[in-house]
Amino acid sequence: MSRRARRSQEWNVRASALARNTHNLIRNIVDNLQVEPNPDKPFIALSIGDPTTFGNLNPPEQVIQAIRDSVELHTSRGYAPSKGHQEAREAVAVYSAHQGDISAEDVILSSGCSHAIELVITVLAECGQNILVPRPGFMIYKTLAEGLGIQIKYYRLLPDKQWKVDLDDLENQINDDTAAIVVINPSNPCGSVYNKEHLSEILDIASRNQVPIIADEIYEHFVFSGNEFTAISSLSKDVPVLTCGGLTKRFLVPGWRMGWVIIHDRHNILGREVRQGLANLSTRILGPSTLIQRALPAILKYTPQSFFDDVLLFIENQAKLAYAELLRAPGLRPIMPQGAMYMMIEIKISLFSEFKNDLQFVERMVSEQSVFCLPGRCFEYPNFMRIVLTVPEDALREACQRIAIFCKEHIDMEEKCKEINSNIIQVTNETEVICNN
Amino acid sequence: MSRRARRSQEWNVRASALARNTHNLIRNIVDNLQVEPNPDKPFIALSIGDPTTFGNLNPPEQVIQAIRDSVELHTSRGYAPSKGHQEAREAVAVYSAHQGDISAEDVILSSGCSHAIELVITVLAECGQNILVPRPGFMIYKTLAEGLGIQIKYYRLLPDKQWKVDLDDLENQINDDTAAIVVINPSNPCGSVYNKEHLSEILDIASRNQVPIIADEIYEHFVFSGNEFTAISSLSKDVPVLTCGGLTKRFLVPGWRMGWVIIHDRHNILGREVRQGLANLSTRILGPSTLIQRALPAILKYTPQSFFDDVLLFIENQAKLAYAELLRAPGLRPIMPQGAMYMMIEIKISLFSEFKNDLQFVERMVSEQSVFCLPGRCFEYPNFMRIVLTVPEDALREACQRIAIFCKEHIDMEEKCKEINSNIIQVTNETEVICNN
Repeated sequence: MSRRARRSQEWNVRASALARNTHNLIRNIVDNLQVEPNPDKPFIALSIGDPTTFGNLNPPEQVIQAIRDSVELHTSRGYAPSKGHQEAREAVAVYSAHQGDISAEDVILSSGCSHAIELVITVLAECGQNILVPRPGFMIYKTLAEGLGIQIKYYRLLPDKQWKVDLDDLENQINDDTAAIVVINPSNPCGSVYNKEHLSEILDIASRNQVPIIADEIYEHFVFSGNEFTAISSLSKDVPVLTCGGLTKRFLVPGWRMGWVIIHDRHNILGREVRQGLANLSTRILGPSTLIQRALPAILKYTPQSFFDDVLLFIENQAKLAYAELLRAPGLRPIMPQGAMYMMIEIKISLFSEFKNDLQFVERMVSEQSVFCLPGRCFEYPNFMRIVLTVPEDALREACQRIAIFCKEHIDMEEKCKEINSNIIQVTNETEVICNN
Repeated sequence: MSRRARRSQEWNVRASALARNTHNLIRNIVDNLQVEPNPDKPFIALSIGDPTTFGNLNPPEQVIQAIRDSVELHTSRGYAPSKGHQEAREAVAVYSAHQGDISAEDVILSSGCSHAIELVITVLAECGQNILVPRPGFMIYKTLAEGLGIQIKYYRLLPDKQWKVDLDDLENQINDDTAAIVVINPSNPCGSVYNKEHLSEILDIASRNQVPIIADEIYEHFVFSGNEFTAISSLSKDVPVLTCGGLTKRFLVPGWRMGWVIIHDRHNILGREVRQGLANLSTRILGPSTLIQRALPAILKYTPQSFFDDVLLFIENQAKLAYAELLRAPGLRPIMPQGAMYMMIEIKISLFSEFKNDLQFVERMVSEQSVFCLPGRCFEYPNFMRIVLTVPEDALREACQRIAIFCKEHIDMEEKCKEINSNIIQVTNETEVICNN
């Protein structure tokens, strides 16, 4: 009798494999940092990918007013259909017309973009299958997939080609167990923006290998002057694309958890099963708050273009500022982003023999300069670090100058002169480049 | 070369087993109803478990004001920690003091109670294990578990004993693969409320079989006069209890998706692993909207008791009204609830030889009387139907009277006289009972 058997034992309650194998890489690394900032210098966090943290960036009045109006509606309090209110899904379809020909039927609302990504991963991938994810790339894919026994395989991005995809490497990673290719454009953490040609090259690989694409376009339209955002779905002839988006960064309300999945499937390759599967999965937690759903049509319709333009101009100028300052830091190589709100910086670790790796480098920078950047390993990309460009201008300048001081103090002696000389030349050239933009 | 092999094939994109095996029983049944209401009678839905649908029940001014205030805070727009903002979790701990000695560390905020239930099922149960769920019971457990390969096993509730648990059946269902016992109190769909003695009997079974309890107390405090709500966690000496709750029905804002998990584990049986597992799982979609999280402390603190009392008094009177009316329906046996917002009604289907089952019964009632009740099969409980008590009083009376007419028209001839006579006597007695309450 199993009950008797149990009665004689001690309690033994384990967590499931799903729970044990769900890890948030960034949180694990950040939470385990053992260092205290330098008490003589105010702490500046260039690590937090939340543009609202510093209070310098706020949603437009139209977004706040839409919520004020929603609060007063008694229809903003009840349950919505699990895929979301019809009017809200229609509004997303209209807002997303640049992605291709879609209707409300192709839209499923989600509790933030993380939930959208969870929906598309879990509908396409099975335990034992794999999904291809860019490296460096945002690690939520690892967090969501591995607990379910879905393997993450990385394809290479090329830092010397503005983080374009290494196409051979991408195609070589594909095998019969590959359930989807994840394309993050514009990219967190790289800030890269792919042009039509490059997106078409990626689509060609997906097409001839018959692998659907998960398009992470949470930073859609988030591109600097001289660049153009193209939705990969708009270029697809046959490849089914599940696009994940949301209000989050673009409307400066990431905490509201308003995201969506858009199904692009012109040749009905996903058929009834994947569509139905997404609908089934949406019944698990019933989507985003109806308070936000009811406001969504007004938010998407009335937010003025000038708001987006102003935010982007600010971030682009921040990128130029950080880039110019960091060129003065010996042993670092900042890579100028084309969009989003981040910059990746190479740490030529061999020139800093004090430090074994990027983690030691950023930890010491906290303890000496009170500046914290996310180490590359947060994106499975060693010897880089990521900074966030949405902090206030003065804080960003101050932080970059402290980073430069830190590098000058720690770069190996014999390297100093070389570095400094070459940097002087580089600065002059780069400054011209920037001024000509 | 797998790529070549693929190239020759047609596209073949399947949905995962998780997606295919995630089913919402109620939605499937309701969506497949093939009947139109009678155009000569206004349609009355007694099926919708959403108290906000009819506009007769609204949240108190304090709840709306708390959100109005939150909208204006710039701190209500950014990301929260994945377990939720500290102040919000502290507020839940204080609000839930009746459950036992808990702190903010024992609270994890979730995107509605469905998400809370998903968190506790997925942290405790593994593919191949089972969880015990009451029948009749709310079917979200089936929706959430089966896709993950977690088996649902039912234990019997006893309609003749105010839906108390059949304790022998419960204990007999337990085997070495049983990961948790789900206790829904007060109950959807039964409206039953368990007293301390009965809850202790359930705890004894869990204790001697060393199975943790999932306490679905989304209807906590939702009890009619003469009944008392007791949190099962407050009675537990050793059994770990994961309690799921939220704002939803009690504060009349189910669409806002504000729920929580509370960990009761006085002897640290869940240890670090299950606590950490819940924290891990909370990083998947990052919890409820910060707009609601920031309002939560004020909502929980300032909502006056008189609001809860008024809503409960209304629902209790509705229950008495429906009960009295339905006693006049030959072939039905309404079971008076003690709380929540539902009533279960037995359909003595053998007395309605026209109808094979509860589904045919409710479908015909829609087409003839334009009244829709959820068939018992929505709760895996045939030959019953569930009505919702939160519809406006006139609609409820009208609906119950139409149900009685329907029964009189369809009950088998030879039964009519018997039924009607016995009902007259029953009505007299029951009316006395009700008046004496």
